[in-house]
Amino acid sequence: MTTYDAAFSRMGAQLSGSAIRQMGILAAGRPDLISFAPGYPDPATFAWEAYRAIADDLLREQGRDTLQYGPTRGYGPLIETVVPRLRTAGIDCTSEEIVVTTGSQQGVDLVTRLLVDPGDVVLVELPTFTGAIAAFRSAGAHIVGVRQDADGIDLAHLADVLRAQREAGRRVKFLYVIPNFQNPTGGLMGLARRRALLDWSEGEGVLIVEDDPYGDLWFADVTRPEDTRPVKADDVQGRVIYVQSTSKTLAPTFRTAWVVAPAPIVARLDVAKQSADLCSSTFDQRIVHEAITRGVLDDHLPTLRETYARKRAAMEGALDRLAGDLVQWTPPRGGFFLWVRLPAGVDTGQMLRAAVDAGVIYVAGAPFFVDGTGANALRLAYSAASEARIEEGIARLARVIRTAAASAPRVSPAAR
Amino acid sequence: MTTYDAAFSRMGAQLSGSAIRQMGILAAGRPDLISFAPGYPDPATFAWEAYRAIADDLLREQGRDTLQYGPTRGYGPLIETVVPRLRTAGIDCTSEEIVVTTGSQQGVDLVTRLLVDPGDVVLVELPTFTGAIAAFRSAGAHIVGVRQDADGIDLAHLADVLRAQREAGRRVKFLYVIPNFQNPTGGLMGLARRRALLDWSEGEGVLIVEDDPYGDLWFADVTRPEDTRPVKADDVQGRVIYVQSTSKTLAPTFRTAWVVAPAPIVARLDVAKQSADLCSSTFDQRIVHEAITRGVLDDHLPTLRETYARKRAAMEGALDRLAGDLVQWTPPRGGFFLWVRLPAGVDTGQMLRAAVDAGVIYVAGAPFFVDGTGANALRLAYSAASEARIEEGIARLARVIRTAAASAPRVSPAAR
Repeated sequence: MTTYDAAFSRMGAQLSGSAIRQMGILAAGRPDLISFAPGYPDPATFAWEAYRAIADDLLREQGRDTLQYGPTRGYGPLIETVVPRLRTAGIDCTSEEIVVTTGSQQGVDLVTRLLVDPGDVVLVELPTFTGAIAAFRSAGAHIVGVRQDADGIDLAHLADVLRAQREAGRRVKFLYVIPNFQNPTGGLMGLARRRALLDWSEGEGVLIVEDDPYGDLWFADVTRPEDTRPVKADDVQGRVIYVQSTSKTLAPTFRTAWVVAPAPIVARLDVAKQSADLCSSTFDQRIVHEAITRGVLDDHLPTLRETYARKRAAMEGALDRLAGDLVQWTPPRGGFFLWVRLPAGVDTGQMLRAAVDAGVIYVAGAPFFVDGTGANALRLAYSAASEARIEEGIARLARVIRTAAASAPRVSPAAR
Repeated sequence: MTTYDAAFSRMGAQLSGSAIRQMGILAAGRPDLISFAPGYPDPATFAWEAYRAIADDLLREQGRDTLQYGPTRGYGPLIETVVPRLRTAGIDCTSEEIVVTTGSQQGVDLVTRLLVDPGDVVLVELPTFTGAIAAFRSAGAHIVGVRQDADGIDLAHLADVLRAQREAGRRVKFLYVIPNFQNPTGGLMGLARRRALLDWSEGEGVLIVEDDPYGDLWFADVTRPEDTRPVKADDVQGRVIYVQSTSKTLAPTFRTAWVVAPAPIVARLDVAKQSADLCSSTFDQRIVHEAITRGVLDDHLPTLRETYARKRAAMEGALDRLAGDLVQWTPPRGGFFLWVRLPAGVDTGQMLRAAVDAGVIYVAGAPFFVDGTGANALRLAYSAASEARIEEGIARLARVIRTAAASAPRVSPAAR
């Protein structure tokens, strides 16, 4: 039998799978399982009939370019449609500052490959999105975490971390942040904090990569739309690379996202994307373009906000009733996630087997932390399940947590 | 103004665009231009009505997973459909040996990232596909060319090159080949040569990456289907990584290709793809799956073969009549491309401006060669243009070539 150990690159040799994706695979084989694991939108919210009409129109027209290869930079009319929408959100950019990517995952991956050599530093929030961590690891980045408080990233800690990395002789390439309804915490960075973060970026010469898949999904009872103003909106010096996706609003399948960045960076992202996948699906981009120009997206957003706000309330209510004495969380103000902290000493990674046996899954907290902490946290996505399933799933989970907490080693307050 | 020179990685700093894609952009703005540049399939051959029926069915059913994120490895039923088709082509594999990628470009890119560290050697044919070269460059590979003769890669030269690279202390990671209707030469590697190449791979312990987007498009007047038997079909030791695409047969937009490789390699490709784009479009994969299971692809292939054989004949005929005294080519036996050699001293890169002025474009030869040669060659794709446009385009091109040849510096036979 042939072995391949010597064949792999350093990246290839160290690859390990994503905890979230593993959960998705586990869930796929168990229809009785209630999954709070992946950040999937609710398929009941998709604009099925609109997509059917659009697809029918596009395929009936038989446009010469509709099913062909397209420009690597993206479908031109889609980009032209995105520009004024970004302007409404405060981001004043030109079409030369946009590149369409195959999902925002590709955007983050290409930005990383463009900027990061092995050993270069990428700063991330503690905790942060595992898919971004995977992309940074894949590029050989030295990933360093920065603490968050209730208002977002901790600027004093950020300054300390930057100084320490520079004193160690490392190049700090960028800070990756998710200001709106952060993954996994659901947190919303305050507006003053955003402004201060931009000042930091300008002062220190460190780029910011701002990932914003959830910004449109604010909950009207606790958030004003202006609270979601992107950091990029005030970026006059070109320090922020902004990534936006349609996966959580239209549908993940279209794999249509875009990166907004200074033109010299976009020009190179274009070239990097050529060797990554030549171009994203032209048909999918056209569907997204039509969905925007026909008003499907805008008509749809209020329903999405209400749907996810209601599911959030259902999950918070159930958790409060069934495990309120055992767990803590910060109420989400938008997005898909509830970030739950369990009693110290409970290891949510170890607890997962019991959860699967009880018919419920989540994502354990540790993979979101690049500093090895987070063992007693877990992420719940309330986005995909129905309210009835949320109630039942939290009931199952509460029993699992109660058992785990009862048998957990006692941890002294100092160690917490 | 902010400059970003210090921000880029080594890869980012050295990026340069693809000659083929640049031509595509140039062509996009000129509707009068006749383009023989990109390897685009003819949209008139697409199964428009079938795709319309399939899309309508899928969107009417509103399947819970149809527009959702899917498994990174690919849509399960598609993979299960591909297995017996590969078996028919001689490739005996299991579903654990297949990963679906966002076009074959992503397949080649991920394989490269998985196997190649900066400075590692990738061997390629002289000339070879520019998209593959771009992926190898992006990984920092040391790319070394191996000559071809009329029967495919030159095994004596391959042995010399391998020895020289190993003597220089470099690790040779794989050989990239396109045995069926090579891009750009249109060449078909002989069956004995394929067998010998596999023996070389097994003997030397160097993997083969076999790219096969054109294998189904053989021309019945000059090729038997058994002449296209993949190298992978005889690979009992697991030395060959095989890449197949639906872009040239169904349509490029679906970005649906697959890599067939030993299971330990596929497992890591799966993880590498997670950080590259999470998953390929599930809707597109379902359309491809339905197109295969409903017989659309198989019903379609004879028409595709006839269409492209007829276009090839049109281009060869026009070239023979209009520039037969000036140019040479090897008649294609399948695929999309005619590889044309001009008189020594003509630089097809420099000639391109005159060609654009005359209303015709091609891809200059030099970018396909990693050794700096090929200045007097060019690639013509006969796939996308109508026969009338082929006739007119070759007439334009012949005039340009005639002018260029008349003013070219005379090159002594020894220098040719």
